[in-house]
Amino acid sequence: MGEFELIGRYFRSVALEGAGSPEHVTLGIGDDAALIAPAAGKQLVVSTDTVVLGTHFPHDYIPANLAYRAIAAAVSDLAAMGARPLSFTLALTLPEVDESWLQSFAEGLTDAARDHRISLIGGDTTRGPLNINVTVFGEVRPRNVVRRGDAHAGDLLCVGGPLGDGAGGLAVALGEHLPGDISDTARDYLFQRFWRPLAQCDLGLELAGVASAGLDVSDGLIADANHLAQASGVALHIRVADLPCSEALHAWPQAQRREWMLGGGDDYVLLFTLPVASISCLDVWSSLGFGVKVIGEAVAGSGIWLDDGQGLEEVVVHSGFQHFQGGGNV
Amino acid sequence: MGEFELIGRYFRSVALEGAGSPEHVTLGIGDDAALIAPAAGKQLVVSTDTVVLGTHFPHDYIPANLAYRAIAAAVSDLAAMGARPLSFTLALTLPEVDESWLQSFAEGLTDAARDHRISLIGGDTTRGPLNINVTVFGEVRPRNVVRRGDAHAGDLLCVGGPLGDGAGGLAVALGEHLPGDISDTARDYLFQRFWRPLAQCDLGLELAGVASAGLDVSDGLIADANHLAQASGVALHIRVADLPCSEALHAWPQAQRREWMLGGGDDYVLLFTLPVASISCLDVWSSLGFGVKVIGEAVAGSGIWLDDGQGLEEVVVHSGFQHFQGGGNV
Repeated sequence: MGEFELIGRYFRSVALEGAGSPEHVTLGIGDDAALIAPAAGKQLVVSTDTVVLGTHFPHDYIPANLAYRAIAAAVSDLAAMGARPLSFTLALTLPEVDESWLQSFAEGLTDAARDHRISLIGGDTTRGPLNINVTVFGEVRPRNVVRRGDAHAGDLLCVGGPLGDGAGGLAVALGEHLPGDISDTARDYLFQRFWRPLAQCDLGLELAGVASAGLDVSDGLIADANHLAQASGVALHIRVADLPCSEALHAWPQAQRREWMLGGGDDYVLLFTLPVASISCLDVWSSLGFGVKVIGEAVAGSGIWLDDGQGLEEVVVHSGFQHFQGGGNV
Repeated sequence: MGEFELIGRYFRSVALEGAGSPEHVTLGIGDDAALIAPAAGKQLVVSTDTVVLGTHFPHDYIPANLAYRAIAAAVSDLAAMGARPLSFTLALTLPEVDESWLQSFAEGLTDAARDHRISLIGGDTTRGPLNINVTVFGEVRPRNVVRRGDAHAGDLLCVGGPLGDGAGGLAVALGEHLPGDISDTARDYLFQRFWRPLAQCDLGLELAGVASAGLDVSDGLIADANHLAQASGVALHIRVADLPCSEALHAWPQAQRREWMLGGGDDYVLLFTLPVASISCLDVWSSLGFGVKVIGEAVAGSGIWLDDGQGLEEVVVHSGFQHFQGGGNV
């Protein structure tokens, strides 16, 4: 058996074990391509996302975690659009075939597929420097799609969960900038948040047809808010005191927390605008257990404006936060 | 403007200039994901393909050619299934932002999109060792899909065009193993065949609902015939004397031509089985200008059998031709 056939065998087991809902798949792994169809009245949503080992990335990673994170990051883009995740393809470039690495990677892939209720439908393996590309497919009714460009002045600005955990989790994973008194609980929580983020798919389904605009926080709150503001042609006001922050992050000084919440990235929580007419949804979501918080509002104008308690100040996005971005969707 | 936003700008221009048929795209570049739908009664076909600079790859490449080849290789998988190509996403990992490289790459992308009548609908850019992943989307009526596993004993085995040009083209591109008397015409033809292959989409549409099984020759004739034979549970007999060979390859000795035609790979011509009841299609295709040749037949049994003029001999696929494979679809 050739070594790349071996890889194929690992992936086939993921495809079989994945607890996805493959009723939309007519033809999957093993042919030149997969054949898929959205349900009647729905359209297919497609997003692609790549993970490489960069300079600011933990190199002593567990392959299962790497796989999990790659899937979650890609699925988060579907959640942001209000789509139900269905399936994914994996294009894996590997420098060598290492059976124990593959075994672990396949386990993480299986976990992520189960947790996000998606199935592997195809892929490609290539020899080269490590590169993990995941393309995810979801379905949505076209009129319910949550886009970036439809926020209006007067809408509330909301986030779906705590901010800054991605950056705090990276610090834990790298073992850098750790306060001496950080608890094991906080450390474990943040490690999990970095390596095993769960895309907010259920919240995304709630937002479909309700939120006026939205995306997921992957580049950092300011950078992603700026994407939304620019696409919608509005200004966004953000009240720093209202930003949700996990208990674990309180091990760090307030200035560090603030930097991570505003610019850290990799949080994979949803950032969206809600028309005031739908404000009653906030109570419904709260009763359902979603941690949605109102953090500001959209107003006429442009730019991102922070309210630190002493009035509004515009953020210079490109100089202040640009350096957190290591890439981007086009 | 951040450097990765710059890349986004290049890709947006491709999306706008591409002469694709974006009526299936509701929402493309600029949001977290693209929204696409196959036409009524059709399903979406998805395939993903990665290109890296490997050890046996010309390193003095022109970026435009690299882009063209990546697209054509991916679209070829759609052609193999009888699908009409619609669109693609591009996940590009780059070590650095080089404007002249990007300019050239975008030109090749635009050429390939136009020639294959597809449009760019989304993508992702990441910093890291060069890696080009293309995921292509096409549409097909489910009952017309050409799979790998439906060949039957008695079917004719056919190829859609000349074999060995991919390997001959690589030799030209690398400047290796060149006969002293190779003409400029042959050299130019093979260089183009390597860098600018045109996926056989029009032929694929003819095969939809007609061919019993098929795939594209990317790993080499023997290796790909073996995929088809194994998936279908048949043996394939191949008459070496009937393999179509371009005029350009005649610059090399017969033994070299034979090796390249059987094992070279990267030809991106279709390999398919045709029920004898549909034999009249051969004349139709010939009149339409398709270079389809019958090269053998499917018979009961297993394995790949070569007829070199002195009777049949079974090919040991794994030892003889496996080394030509640098990766594979799962």
